[in-house]
Amino acid sequence: MCYTGGMDSENTKRQIEAALAKLLPSPEGEAAALHAAMRWAVEGGGKRVRPLVCLAAAEAVGGAADDALMPACAIELLHSYTLVHDDLPAMDNDTERRGRPSTWAKFGEDTAILAGDALQALAFVALAKTPVSCPGVRAGLLSILGEAAVGVVRGQAAELSGSKDVAYVYGHKTADLFVAAARMGATAGGGTAAQVERLGTFALHLGLAFQHEDDLLDGDSPLGRAEAEPTRRSPCSSACPATRPSFRTSLPASPRARPSDWIHPRMWRLRRFFIVRQADTPTDSISLARRLGWCRCARGTGGA
Amino acid sequence: MCYTGGMDSENTKRQIEAALAKLLPSPEGEAAALHAAMRWAVEGGGKRVRPLVCLAAAEAVGGAADDALMPACAIELLHSYTLVHDDLPAMDNDTERRGRPSTWAKFGEDTAILAGDALQALAFVALAKTPVSCPGVRAGLLSILGEAAVGVVRGQAAELSGSKDVAYVYGHKTADLFVAAARMGATAGGGTAAQVERLGTFALHLGLAFQHEDDLLDGDSPLGRAEAEPTRRSPCSSACPATRPSFRTSLPASPRARPSDWIHPRMWRLRRFFIVRQADTPTDSISLARRLGWCRCARGTGGA
Repeated sequence: MCYTGGMDSENTKRQIEAALAKLLPSPEGEAAALHAAMRWAVEGGGKRVRPLVCLAAAEAVGGAADDALMPACAIELLHSYTLVHDDLPAMDNDTERRGRPSTWAKFGEDTAILAGDALQALAFVALAKTPVSCPGVRAGLLSILGEAAVGVVRGQAAELSGSKDVAYVYGHKTADLFVAAARMGATAGGGTAAQVERLGTFALHLGLAFQHEDDLLDGDSPLGRAEAEPTRRSPCSSACPATRPSFRTSLPASPRARPSDWIHPRMWRLRRFFIVRQADTPTDSISLARRLGWCRCARGTGGA
Repeated sequence: MCYTGGMDSENTKRQIEAALAKLLPSPEGEAAALHAAMRWAVEGGGKRVRPLVCLAAAEAVGGAADDALMPACAIELLHSYTLVHDDLPAMDNDTERRGRPSTWAKFGEDTAILAGDALQALAFVALAKTPVSCPGVRAGLLSILGEAAVGVVRGQAAELSGSKDVAYVYGHKTADLFVAAARMGATAGGGTAAQVERLGTFALHLGLAFQHEDDLLDGDSPLGRAEAEPTRRSPCSSACPATRPSFRTSLPASPRARPSDWIHPRMWRLRRFFIVRQADTPTDSISLARRLGWCRCARGTGGA
C-alpha cells in the first residue's frame, strides 16, 4: 500500500490565513469592537479544512490553487459565522470555542450577532474579489455559495426542530459547505460541469463522514454507534446521502502517513476512515483526495 | 410649481412582492419553521422603498425596471434580515414590528436568528438569479451588495458602541442600503459608471434624510431637533454626508401630489422634505426622483 503525501498543507494553510487576515477589517475606527469580534471568530485557529478542499479541488481539475483563494476564504468566513451564531445563548449557549471564550462570551451577545452577520456578508465580498477569466465563473461561484449559505441554515433549523431525518440535517448543516468548497474550487479552477458535479459528490461524502465522526467522538451520533458503524465501512465512491455507504475503515492507517502537526488529531482519525479506492472512484476525485492526503490506493494500481 | 406623478408604485410594489414570494421558500418540509419565519419577516408589509429606489434607478438610466427586479428583491431581503436581528432581545428587544409580533416574538429567538441569517443568504441567491447581458454587471452587483451588507452592520455596531459620529452611523446603518439600491438599479439598467456614482450620491442624501426623519418622528434624533432642522433645509444635490446639506423643507407640499394609499404616511412626510431642484441636480437624479414622485421642479424649467 502507499499513502500519498497530500498538498503542502502547512504552506497552504498559511496562505489561506494571510488572505483571511487581509480581508478582515482592522480593529479600529467607529466599528472597532465589531471588527475585533470578526477577527476573534476567524483567527482563533481552526483546521481550515473547507478552504483546503476548495484549493485542492481547483488543482484536481488542472487549475491553480490561487484561482480559488478568494472562494476558499469565502467558505471559511461563512463557516466562521455559523460557529459564532451557533454558540449564542439562544442557540447552543457555548461559552468556549477552541479552548478560548466564544465570540459572544468575549464581546457580548449583541456584538456577536453583528459579527456573524458581517462575516457572512464578507464571504460574498470575497467572492466579488475573485479574479475570473471567464464571465460564467463568477455567476457559478455566487450561485454555489448563495445556495450553500441558505442550505447550512436549513440544516441547523431542521436539527433545532428535532428532525429525525439525519440525511437532511447532516447533508445541509455540514456537508453543504464541503460541497460548496469543492464545487467552487472546481469552478474557479476551470473544471467542466461534470467535474464540478463529481467533486461536489465526493465532498458530500467527505462532509457526511466529517459530521458522523464528530458526533461519534462527542458520543451523540443520532444514528447510534451500532448504526453508524456500517456506514463507516462502505466505499466512498457510491452516491450517498448519509444513509448510504460513504467511507470505509477496513484498512489500518500507515505510520508513514502521519500528518504534519497542523492537522488536528480528529482530522487524522477521520482520514483513517475516509479511504478512497482508486478502482471505483473517478480520476478527479482521486486527485482531490490525494491532495488532501486522504487517498490510499492499492499498490501498483495508482499513479502519482 | 408642478409635481410629477412618479412611477406606477402600486403595480410596481405588487411586482416586487410577487417576486419576493417566489424567492422565499415555502413553509413546509424539515425546515418548515425557518421558512415560515422568513416569510413572516418579509411579508409583513413594509413600504418597499429600497426596491422602489432600485427599480427607479434602472429606469432613470434608460434601462427597464425588470432588469433590476432581482437586485431590488435582494436589497429588500437584506433590509428584512437586519430588522429581524435588530428586534432580538440582545439587540433592541422589540416584541412588535409593523403592528404584529416581531419574528423572534412569534417564532422564538433561535429561529429568528436563523431566519435573519437565511434571509441575508437569500439576498445573494437573488443576485445570482439576475439576468445580465454584460459580464461585468453581475460582478458589479455582487460588489455593491456585499459592501453594503458589511456596511450596514458597521453602522449598527457603531451605534451600539455609542458612537457620536452621526455621519458614520446614519451613513452606514441606513444610507448604505439606499445607496446600494440605487447603484444596483443603475448597474442592472446598463448605466455608465458616472451614472451609477451620481445616483448613489443621490440615494445617500435620500437615506440620510430618511433616517433623520425617522429619528425626529421618534423624538430621538442624535442631532437634536435644533441641529437637525438646518440639515432639512438644504438642497439635496450637494455632496454630503449627514453633516452636509441634504434636503429642504422650504416648499409646501402640493395637494395634487397626494400619494396613493400604499405609501406610508411617514414616507409622505419625508417626501415633503426631500425636494429636488432641477437647477442644481443632474438629469439622471432628477429622473430617479421623478419616478419616485419625490421631484418638484420650478414651473417652466422642467421636462417630463
